[in-house]
Amino acid sequence: MNYKITGSGSCIPTNNQDNGAFLSQSFYDDNGVELELDNQIIIDKFNSITGIEQRKYINKELKTSDIAAVAAQDAIEDAQIDPETLDYIIVAHNFGDIPYGSKQIDTLPNLAARVKSKLKIKNPSCVAYDILFGCPGWVEGMIQAKAFIKAGMATKCLVVGADALSRVIDKYDRDSMIFADGAGATILEATDEDGGVLSHTSATYTSENEAEFIYYGNSCNTKADQSEKYIKMQGRKVYEFALRHVPAAMKKCLDDANIEIDQLKKIFIHQANKKMDEAIAKRFYRLYKVPMPEDILPMNIEEFGNSSVATVPTLFNLVLKQNYKGHRLNKGDIILFASVGSGMNINAITYQI
Amino acid sequence: MNYKITGSGSCIPTNNQDNGAFLSQSFYDDNGVELELDNQIIIDKFNSITGIEQRKYINKELKTSDIAAVAAQDAIEDAQIDPETLDYIIVAHNFGDIPYGSKQIDTLPNLAARVKSKLKIKNPSCVAYDILFGCPGWVEGMIQAKAFIKAGMATKCLVVGADALSRVIDKYDRDSMIFADGAGATILEATDEDGGVLSHTSATYTSENEAEFIYYGNSCNTKADQSEKYIKMQGRKVYEFALRHVPAAMKKCLDDANIEIDQLKKIFIHQANKKMDEAIAKRFYRLYKVPMPEDILPMNIEEFGNSSVATVPTLFNLVLKQNYKGHRLNKGDIILFASVGSGMNINAITYQI
Repeated sequence: MNYKITGSGSCIPTNNQDNGAFLSQSFYDDNGVELELDNQIIIDKFNSITGIEQRKYINKELKTSDIAAVAAQDAIEDAQIDPETLDYIIVAHNFGDIPYGSKQIDTLPNLAARVKSKLKIKNPSCVAYDILFGCPGWVEGMIQAKAFIKAGMATKCLVVGADALSRVIDKYDRDSMIFADGAGATILEATDEDGGVLSHTSATYTSENEAEFIYYGNSCNTKADQSEKYIKMQGRKVYEFALRHVPAAMKKCLDDANIEIDQLKKIFIHQANKKMDEAIAKRFYRLYKVPMPEDILPMNIEEFGNSSVATVPTLFNLVLKQNYKGHRLNKGDIILFASVGSGMNINAITYQI
Repeated sequence: MNYKITGSGSCIPTNNQDNGAFLSQSFYDDNGVELELDNQIIIDKFNSITGIEQRKYINKELKTSDIAAVAAQDAIEDAQIDPETLDYIIVAHNFGDIPYGSKQIDTLPNLAARVKSKLKIKNPSCVAYDILFGCPGWVEGMIQAKAFIKAGMATKCLVVGADALSRVIDKYDRDSMIFADGAGATILEATDEDGGVLSHTSATYTSENEAEFIYYGNSCNTKADQSEKYIKMQGRKVYEFALRHVPAAMKKCLDDANIEIDQLKKIFIHQANKKMDEAIAKRFYRLYKVPMPEDILPMNIEEFGNSSVATVPTLFNLVLKQNYKGHRLNKGDIILFASVGSGMNINAITYQI
């Protein structure tokens, strides 16, 4: 038995914020000191490291579960399945629903129940749960879907990754420019066809204080309300962690599938930072002692920003359906999904189209 | 291969609040009208329905992940395993960590990473994730652990259920008296021994607005800050839903395991409300047309309150280790775990000791 993606979908927020939107924002450093540099210089430096020119936010009236449901519907239609035949709805996110203007995460009921309700699925045997696993949540949801199918507990699973980081950013923190909103979804089905999920790997690192690398913390601006918390990163530590551990995890995953490096067609990696992602991919190829092919790494971070759990499934959907930026996927192609994020968690899937 | 609980543990909060603590509280109805009845009468009625005389809250300096880690450590010691050999840490909760005095749910990083960090487990292959599934979260975590073992992806899983509902209650709502804090944990292992998890069933109901039965909503007191949200229940609807669906789910689970009703020794059901739980159990036996045995339903809701995901594993641990209230479990005994909660979600496991 194999495990194949039979449909994919996404919900791309329509509110585009380009870097210019941050020109008049006051930024503070981690010590609460206001940055003296001209904002254009701060933005240019930010852009040269992260590659981000624009990010997408959801409109004020929307919440994460709304875009999760749109992406789910898109994937269901793409797979041409009856949604009543789904065994699982797995929604990966990190901040639940947060209404615009609120700082209160709402996870009651869980987002998967909200998505199921919006999709008007009646079958009670379609089990809807949420997984929290940092940015690698969608990849981990796919691994769990594979487990349910392999264990004979499911034949058809909907896996959604959705977050609205625009609702948890500290506007006084330069890192706020990184974060974006989005939702991507896939249907994973049991099949006798060749290909599909060939291998997977997952890991959680916590023994060197990694749980503090990406965290909920106070505003950089000490004059702002210090009782409210926001998404925070120790950027340098995240970068070093990712470079140290992600290439090896990707190699382990590919090796577990008995795939040669020259068979690999594309890498869909969590887009946190363009420079970091390129460095990870280069180091991954260095482990095989071969140069990195030029067209291996599709990216849309330039115009999408870092949309948390949604970066991998939304980009995959874009490339699969629209040959985004000339990237093309053909039947039989072998690709890698890989992600890294808070926890710190890392995972990867070797997948054959 | 079978799936057995090789260790269990709990963390029982030490701050006992008896019903008298609510004697001077102002309560409001759903229309924002202050209740005119004497509080002693309100409390007596509450007690006669729910059975609750006392509930346990965590101390101010603690958060959900702290008690989750204590329960986890207890289960690990009970199982006499090396924690480095765990393949998964699954933490079921519904409200993340909320510091005392805050209304902000903190889920970054996820609670499982915090638990793993507190347990000082180094092995990165021990994957730590959170599941949100309402009160049935711990039971669902056990089902997922079984899936991973059956799929060959794990041999040893730690499943924790922890919540601190004292941090999300609206003090102006009579229902606030129901809720409590707690953490329970189990180790599920692959084994060649007889027994263990014999069957399971799970369901999510959303097609009749069930997603709104238990939700995050405003204070009953319209003069209180209406931007803050709290755990809210449509009590009557929850009661009717549970009576309608839970007995059938329990029967399906027992039948799937090919177990006769007279072989069943105990039912560990989510303790939301004593009258409701007894009515569910009676209706379950009525489906088999046999009377309900007197000692079938261990309960500690009288002194523990409704501690969300923690009610089932904490009570199981108490009965297993201390023969709580004369309830005794012996090798070979067949029991049912069953739960119902927000989503609305229902699940059950037939288990042989």
